[in-house]
Amino acid sequence: MDVVQARERFASVRVARLATVGANAWPHIVPIVFALDGDVLYTAVDGKPKSSTDLRRLDNIAANPEVAVLADRYADDWTQLWWVRADGIARVLHGDDAEPGIRLLTERYEQYRSQPPTGPVIAIRVERWSGWQAADPD
Amino acid sequence: MDVVQARERFASVRVARLATVGANAWPHIVPIVFALDGDVLYTAVDGKPKSSTDLRRLDNIAANPEVAVLADRYADDWTQLWWVRADGIARVLHGDDAEPGIRLLTERYEQYRSQPPTGPVIAIRVERWSGWQAADPD
Repeated sequence: MDVVQARERFASVRVARLATVGANAWPHIVPIVFALDGDVLYTAVDGKPKSSTDLRRLDNIAANPEVAVLADRYADDWTQLWWVRADGIARVLHGDDAEPGIRLLTERYEQYRSQPPTGPVIAIRVERWSGWQAADPD
Repeated sequence: MDVVQARERFASVRVARLATVGANAWPHIVPIVFALDGDVLYTAVDGKPKSSTDLRRLDNIAANPEVAVLADRYADDWTQLWWVRADGIARVLHGDDAEPGIRLLTERYEQYRSQPPTGPVIAIRVERWSGWQAADPD
């Protein structure tokens, strides 16, 4: 799967999974909604990141910005399986810096329109796209 | 969400995502099919783990057995979202040691029946179940 196809498939799903790892070595993983702008992936944390999961994600990125995000398709017909992984460098954006990401997320997800995320926003600059598929594309 | 409910929800999905992290700090993430036996999760690697992804997973576990596995539900109705994360310690099993896991996987996935996985099998002893849901259960 080439980079163009990998990015296109990644962009076709509504949910992805973000893996981070912080000061201790245990990986952390959480589902995210996201918007892509070329090789930059945006995802938002709740306005009040009160939950331990939100905090863990932000703490991990502060300690180690190297993250991985996975998009995949599951089907009972295993010849239809594929996944795409984006390895990238994450930054946490606040205030005005978070605006472009929030705009893209609000455009992509109708669910955000009545209540846009306030940030912070995690911006991931994708350094490497890699993908696998069970069979040749249709 | 209590442990019993977390485990039950986790067991209800057909695909999960496994995050590992090896000698370098970059997390790795891949979709897996799995079978649960109490607090032990089994997943198989292809008979010939020739791909870089399979090798990376096994190398990472050898370097650092601390892994995380995520099961989640996505829905356009965001009040229906939930996820469950299993943090655990992974071991790679070969030969006879892989048999119990292969048996459970083959029972759970019809797709394996014509061609059961040959191993190795990754067995993850779950140390902690954690979960989140957007709204109260129906």
